[in-house]
Amino acid sequence: MAAAACRSSPCSGVRPNRRACLRLASSARAAVQAERPAAAEELGAATRAEFPILHQEVNGRQLVYLDNAATSQKPLAVLGAMDEYYRGYNSNVHRGVHALSARATAEYEEAREKIARFINAASAQEVVYTRNATEAINLVANTWGTAHLREGDEVVLSVAEHHSNLVPWQLLAQRKGLVLKFVELTGSEELDVEQLARLVGPRTRLVSLVHVSNMLGCMLPVHKVAEICSGVGAKLLLDCCQSVPNMPVDVQSLGADFIVASSHKMCGPTGIGFLWGRSSLLADMPPWMGGGEMIQEVRLEGSTYAEPPSRFEAGTPAIAEAIGLGAACDYLAGLGMARVAAHERELGAHLYEQLRSINGVRIYGPSPEAAQGRAALATFNVEGIHPTDISTLLDSAGVAVRSGHLCTQPVHRHLGIASSVRASPYIYNTRAEVDAFVDALKDTIQFFREVGA
Amino acid sequence: MAAAACRSSPCSGVRPNRRACLRLASSARAAVQAERPAAAEELGAATRAEFPILHQEVNGRQLVYLDNAATSQKPLAVLGAMDEYYRGYNSNVHRGVHALSARATAEYEEAREKIARFINAASAQEVVYTRNATEAINLVANTWGTAHLREGDEVVLSVAEHHSNLVPWQLLAQRKGLVLKFVELTGSEELDVEQLARLVGPRTRLVSLVHVSNMLGCMLPVHKVAEICSGVGAKLLLDCCQSVPNMPVDVQSLGADFIVASSHKMCGPTGIGFLWGRSSLLADMPPWMGGGEMIQEVRLEGSTYAEPPSRFEAGTPAIAEAIGLGAACDYLAGLGMARVAAHERELGAHLYEQLRSINGVRIYGPSPEAAQGRAALATFNVEGIHPTDISTLLDSAGVAVRSGHLCTQPVHRHLGIASSVRASPYIYNTRAEVDAFVDALKDTIQFFREVGA
Repeated sequence: MAAAACRSSPCSGVRPNRRACLRLASSARAAVQAERPAAAEELGAATRAEFPILHQEVNGRQLVYLDNAATSQKPLAVLGAMDEYYRGYNSNVHRGVHALSARATAEYEEAREKIARFINAASAQEVVYTRNATEAINLVANTWGTAHLREGDEVVLSVAEHHSNLVPWQLLAQRKGLVLKFVELTGSEELDVEQLARLVGPRTRLVSLVHVSNMLGCMLPVHKVAEICSGVGAKLLLDCCQSVPNMPVDVQSLGADFIVASSHKMCGPTGIGFLWGRSSLLADMPPWMGGGEMIQEVRLEGSTYAEPPSRFEAGTPAIAEAIGLGAACDYLAGLGMARVAAHERELGAHLYEQLRSINGVRIYGPSPEAAQGRAALATFNVEGIHPTDISTLLDSAGVAVRSGHLCTQPVHRHLGIASSVRASPYIYNTRAEVDAFVDALKDTIQFFREVGA
Repeated sequence: MAAAACRSSPCSGVRPNRRACLRLASSARAAVQAERPAAAEELGAATRAEFPILHQEVNGRQLVYLDNAATSQKPLAVLGAMDEYYRGYNSNVHRGVHALSARATAEYEEAREKIARFINAASAQEVVYTRNATEAINLVANTWGTAHLREGDEVVLSVAEHHSNLVPWQLLAQRKGLVLKFVELTGSEELDVEQLARLVGPRTRLVSLVHVSNMLGCMLPVHKVAEICSGVGAKLLLDCCQSVPNMPVDVQSLGADFIVASSHKMCGPTGIGFLWGRSSLLADMPPWMGGGEMIQEVRLEGSTYAEPPSRFEAGTPAIAEAIGLGAACDYLAGLGMARVAAHERELGAHLYEQLRSINGVRIYGPSPEAAQGRAALATFNVEGIHPTDISTLLDSAGVAVRSGHLCTQPVHRHLGIASSVRASPYIYNTRAEVDAFVDALKDTIQFFREVGA
């Protein structure tokens, strides 16, 4: 099993570290399943053996994968669930009475239940499968937005939104004559909730904000925001791409009306994400895409549509992906999301402190001591060195971080920069890896200082 | 390897047939890779070992999977390509400079090249990834359709379209005041191309038809249709879900302007499909979904968009799925699509003849001797027996077929029926399996005749 988990990859410059893998697979894996270490900092070591990809060398150095805010790696449980589907019962769902189809349908719908349990939805029927979180936001814009927004209505966003929570509203605003308003940042580089209270008004129909910013790491005080929204009768959509994978999210106590998340950032496969929406809202939304699955009756003269969530799931769905996402929810729930959050708080704080101690490094977003805390990611720049140069040199030391505009051009512009570097640990990362990243960053800075001198 | 391919499935009633699997894996697999049998009928036996799912018992009988028009099974090459991605280089694409991201991006775009080669597109930039063929049609309706169709414009469809090629146009017609017209069937139950010639006119902007019907098995004379379209300056969209997996499709000689297909019907994973469109048309189409990947520059006041295909691919794409679909194209191209088509012609004709010989069986669509031939699928009813009862009894004999409305309610209504049974073989099916199905069907009919008597 462990040997299979460490299967070699022909990727140039990427070699599996078989010994490390075998060692971890036999010891730490048992630790996860049998007796879990109590201390949060042990989560990294305990889970690593479940992630075959981590046990390889990149450019001659052990891989340190710190690009988790872009995508997480997948545990064996998720790969196994999809493999079992394809090798055991691959079949189209909702359409056949034969054994494979019946089992595929049952597992596909059971995955929806798993997601619902993971976010504590009142019903699995409130979970709509989409390709990714981006599609989920576009779905709300094109269904709820089309049905309920009129010319002059206002949608409040923030300057720190991911492009996925900006462009769909710009497109809808163009089509319907909406007014978009933008919450800015406080001095500590969090979303300015006091400004939000002033921005909303009687024409505000929707507030759509990032729960945890993929650039700033700031966390939204959702209850306060929900109160502001309900004060003016506005709906609240939360982009939970960076929260659902990393902390407990309970939609029944959160106060939002819609949330979106992507599978690939929460140990699940690519090709799937989901929208959660209150039943009463989903029931009232017109269809968006037409096709099989989403219909009740099709006549040449016109059609009637299925109840949610099917109404929003046209065509053959991402079946293996749904089953994989369900397995990812089980995996994370098995670790315990409170424990995941504690691990990330600790690792994130360590990352922040280490980075802060380096001369010339500017970290964006609030400090870990901020009222709402900050997520386990650090976006930064180093004085005089281009972000791409930093990530390139880190890569040569086996450290994977992201550089660029992080799909958040407006907040970069707002901060007076064009791009940045981001390191984002996850459940399987350790303090030792954060230290390895920091050491490699120091070497990188020294290299450029010497070249520049 | 063979043992792994036959991994046990805990599905109730579904048990792997390990001996059969091991035997086939060691003999036939080598045959595929080394010296391919010349005769078309040998393709089934030669490819079976590549498909682990086939080697199992269902309800105590060897599985005979004849539900391929709903979804095909996946060869080891496809499962291996996705596994290699997840275990070796899973990373977000187009966004990072580190080694994993660079390789993921290269493989993701190489898969687009593979699809382009498979359908002989002039450029990979003409291939847009979608979740499925349904989304691809909705994409055309919501981009090309939104930009180019005006009130009173006409779209010509047929009564035999899959719901995925009906409902998107109904939704667009409601929004824009379009007129939908429908081609009916000839006496031999093919699309009536002479009627099409009469239906099109100066207001016809689009003709959107099924290339090979998933219900009737009829094949569209595309060159004739394309000539009719170009005569009135209408664009031609083809639903190629049942043609691209089964026969050579060359978009440069086909005469269509758009084609759509789904991965899961052509040995690829679920969660992905594609649109092919002429560069000149794609270049002119506005975006549909907004988000990352599809932008050039995002400002709070408005955004500019990327060139196709990125313009139509918002958010983190289905990366593993694209790579899997690329591997599926390689796999099918390796077999040779002419050989696949010959195999299917032969198997389809055998299926048709066997069914035709059974008293009380009514097969829909043209005979194999029709001018355009017919696809390797047979949709039928048996006098006095409900389709669901037939498929249920066939399932108890290990035979997987589909029953229901096959996502084609209008053509069922047109033929005066509510539902039907469909058997659809693919590359890995054999004459012996068709015979097993026919025997089981005869037993089923006899059972009901005796019960009914």
